[in-house]
Amino acid sequence: MNEVVVRNNVKVIGEGERTLMLAHGFGCDQSMWKYILPAFEPHYRIVLFDYVGSGRSDLSAYTSERYSSLDGYMQDVLDIMEALQLQDVIFIGHSVSSMIGMLASIQRPDYFEQLIMIGPSARYLNGDGYVGGFDKSDVTELLAMMEMNFAGWASFLAPIAMNNPELPKLTKELERSFISTDPGITREFAEVTFFSDCRNELSRVTVPVLIMQCSDDSIVPIAAGEYLHKHLHNSTFRLMEAKGHYPHISHPEETITIIQEYLK
Amino acid sequence: MNEVVVRNNVKVIGEGERTLMLAHGFGCDQSMWKYILPAFEPHYRIVLFDYVGSGRSDLSAYTSERYSSLDGYMQDVLDIMEALQLQDVIFIGHSVSSMIGMLASIQRPDYFEQLIMIGPSARYLNGDGYVGGFDKSDVTELLAMMEMNFAGWASFLAPIAMNNPELPKLTKELERSFISTDPGITREFAEVTFFSDCRNELSRVTVPVLIMQCSDDSIVPIAAGEYLHKHLHNSTFRLMEAKGHYPHISHPEETITIIQEYLK
Repeated sequence: MNEVVVRNNVKVIGEGERTLMLAHGFGCDQSMWKYILPAFEPHYRIVLFDYVGSGRSDLSAYTSERYSSLDGYMQDVLDIMEALQLQDVIFIGHSVSSMIGMLASIQRPDYFEQLIMIGPSARYLNGDGYVGGFDKSDVTELLAMMEMNFAGWASFLAPIAMNNPELPKLTKELERSFISTDPGITREFAEVTFFSDCRNELSRVTVPVLIMQCSDDSIVPIAAGEYLHKHLHNSTFRLMEAKGHYPHISHPEETITIIQEYLK
Repeated sequence: MNEVVVRNNVKVIGEGERTLMLAHGFGCDQSMWKYILPAFEPHYRIVLFDYVGSGRSDLSAYTSERYSSLDGYMQDVLDIMEALQLQDVIFIGHSVSSMIGMLASIQRPDYFEQLIMIGPSARYLNGDGYVGGFDKSDVTELLAMMEMNFAGWASFLAPIAMNNPELPKLTKELERSFISTDPGITREFAEVTFFSDCRNELSRVTVPVLIMQCSDDSIVPIAAGEYLHKHLHNSTFRLMEAKGHYPHISHPEETITIIQEYLK
């Protein structure tokens, strides 16, 4: 089997002419797409994968060096696209994967047809008049918490990130996802994610972008979504009724509808 | 997307280090593996596909010339193996696919680890003291029937081939599979299948083979299975309790158990 297919636990499913690539976010893996998958499987060829270090990827392929910035994760995306000879991909990225896909599209615009960003953020930190939602001390505390008590961190962050207290099963699912990852790798991924700053890249994006912004997202404030919309010239902004940072899990119907409307 | 992946409607699913490639038989497609798939998905990486002309393959890639012998179908297998850079594949072929996989393994033994043949036959026609199960006139009649009344042919052959009258749902499923194919292509595939003769190739096989023979197979007599076992030096012969020509559909548990025992 192609090394990249094994390394990134790549799956190819679904029927159709057009290709969807679904890229999970921090602390998650491809299983997080399960609620929206059935709507797209009959109509699209779908590529699923886990970033190295996440899910059932090959952990031995992880090096702190390669994954010390979003570029390493971007390279995973490009490696998979190359291995499967993908082109004209509709890339759906959740959270930090929105930026990872965006960076990949700057590198190889020929691989991409559209970018669909679920809960994206060009920068998580506040500063210089920019509202990212986190102060540096918040992130430092989160990282320290991960180091001291990984399970405690997972049960602390999951309900905040999910932000749908009426759906405790989903919060538990997210917590389990967090906790099932390698603590060292996850901490490094958190650091890379929360300290990333893609604002200077936005003007280089050429493919059309859909920005899906949740209405009460504890990770990404609306200002961060609006910032993206303002700086991505070919972008569409959709404010969702869905609350929290995981609309594809907590509000699959709305997520499906908005994506379908955009792809029409 | 890689052209071969689209052309042969390739799917990659499952988790595991070792690769299973499942190759459907005549008049079928990859969906026929659904009953045994759940047993292997948690432990193997599984490659599913439809031969050009079958299932949801790209029919426009079909030419009578390329598919005028089993070599064309063999080339589909090799193309997929190459596209996904497969190696050490455990190839499970049903019916004529047993021979297609075997031919591929002669061409590229490095791609194969084992061949598992479900209901294989080196030759379907009787003659020269060989018992294949069909006289030439039987096949000519079947082919004529396909030409005159394709739906009638399907409803005639399905119950004979399934040979499990107590499971009418499965007979119906097989009939629907027959009838959902392109009549012209299917007739050509039938001709290629029933007139194939792989007996001279058997001594060239180097990979280990498991022969799974049904006890009351209306397409392949036991003598044909025994012939294979005798001429494939590195082969294991398992006579199944399952009746009919589709044990992976009618008797999934026994099929799974025998395969698992062989792979252990």
